Amino acid sequence: MKTVHLIGIGPGDPEMVTVQAINTMKTVDVFFLLEKAGRGKESLLAVRRDILERYAGERPYRVVTAASPQRNRENPNYAEGVIEWRDERLTIIGDLIANELTEGQVGAFLVWGDPSLYDGMIESLSLLQRQGRQDFDFTVIPGITSVQVLTARHRIPLNRIAETITITTGRLLEDVAPADVTNAVVMLDSRQAFRRFAETGHEVYWGALLGSPDERLIAGPVAEVADAIEGELEAVRAQNGWVMDTYILRKP
Amino acid sequence: MKTVHLIGIGPGDPEMVTVQAINTMKTVDVFFLLEKAGRGKESLLAVRRDILERYAGERPYRVVTAASPQRNRENPNYAEGVIEWRDERLTIIGDLIANELTEGQVGAFLVWGDPSLYDGMIESLSLLQRQGRQDFDFTVIPGITSVQVLTARHRIPLNRIAETITITTGRLLEDVAPADVTNAVVMLDSRQAFRRFAETGHEVYWGALLGSPDERLIAGPVAEVADAIEGELEAVRAQNGWVMDTYILRKP
Repeated sequence: MKTVHLIGIGPGDPEMVTVQAINTMKTVDVFFLLEKAGRGKESLLAVRRDILERYAGERPYRVVTAASPQRNRENPNYAEGVIEWRDERLTIIGDLIANELTEGQVGAFLVWGDPSLYDGMIESLSLLQRQGRQDFDFTVIPGITSVQVLTARHRIPLNRIAETITITTGRLLEDVAPADVTNAVVMLDSRQAFRRFAETGHEVYWGALLGSPDERLIAGPVAEVADAIEGELEAVRAQNGWVMDTYILRKP
Repeated sequence: MKTVHLIGIGPGDPEMVTVQAINTMKTVDVFFLLEKAGRGKESLLAVRRDILERYAGERPYRVVTAASPQRNRENPNYAEGVIEWRDERLTIIGDLIANELTEGQVGAFLVWGDPSLYDGMIESLSLLQRQGRQDFDFTVIPGITSVQVLTARHRIPLNRIAETITITTGRLLEDVAPADVTNAVVMLDSRQAFRRFAETGHEVYWGALLGSPDERLIAGPVAEVADAIEGELEAVRAQNGWVMDTYILRKP
């Protein structure tokens, strides 16, 4: 058998890695780094290489990078586009495990944040096994998510007393009436869905590049801070070529 | 000024502590441990003392324990009961910071899981400051939650493609029609609210004492595994005097 670990490395700050993740890294023969195309990929690779240099230990290990496919943004059916993209990625992942690990070896994928939150790797490995691949077993190592960094930096709880928490995406948020949202964590928003919450008096707790030295934070009523958030998004995108942001919308 | 850190220590497994939490512990003069009354309190204290012994370093530090008040379970208004309990706890916390830390010293509360998720410490310290206490500043250090351990052990993502995640409590779940729930994380359930989801074909991914050596895991259709979960809950409660469990309900 081969073993594959999905290691949650947190938001990028090497300090936010767990002891379990570090101890697991020290047992790995081959690290697989999937690179996204486009500007900014060098810095994303550099963060993971930095984490490996700091924690993976003295024993020899190999690093294998592979290009991650891009989702076809022209497919109007979002779920279909995601499934297509995952199938392509599945082939790449399956080939890496088949070709780059020998019997008894240990491989690992370093996953941003936590492997269970808006990441497809758990499903990919499960699907490979359901499709009959019996040459590997896998484990999941939890990591700190950007949502947890967001609440820590703003020093707010995720929930108020006796309140449900909703974690959703910018896309899904567009189908919801703003007045119905009391408390929502929003991830993967590329369209500034928060702007719809200006007139309902919602407050926003926003953060970009959380856990990095360039972290940006803004909080306040949406009506008052929406333009400032847009300004930061544009500034970060101009500088890095990409931006990851997360925010909480809350009815006061 | 005094500094107070709210350190998320994860679910109890010392391996699931982050480097940031460890490095923060090494700077602390006084650790405050709030003890709950009742059976099992010794083991909960022991886990935190074990984490301190392992990580807090060689420099001298003090450990101050204080009794945490108990929520009046006879108050029929849940939110009111919680607020009353928090006010009592607020007085204790305020006194600890006032009396046990001197100017310039660093104190810390070790918080189970992550301080932002179903824990009142962030609100308590914010409230003390809003009430005019200007003698301390505080920071929040994220930690791994039991929810993340649950998904890691069952090797499932928290969300399926294009799906919202709801985190709720056993109490809140009672007000929801089972057919309306596609994907929910349930915490703090003392009444086996999952049983209502037997006839709607929901699956449950359940865990108790997550991150401890006595961890229990069960997964399957609610109709088939509800009795097994109840059996484990009773067995753990008989052995420890208490039980913490978390689960995910999911429409297939």
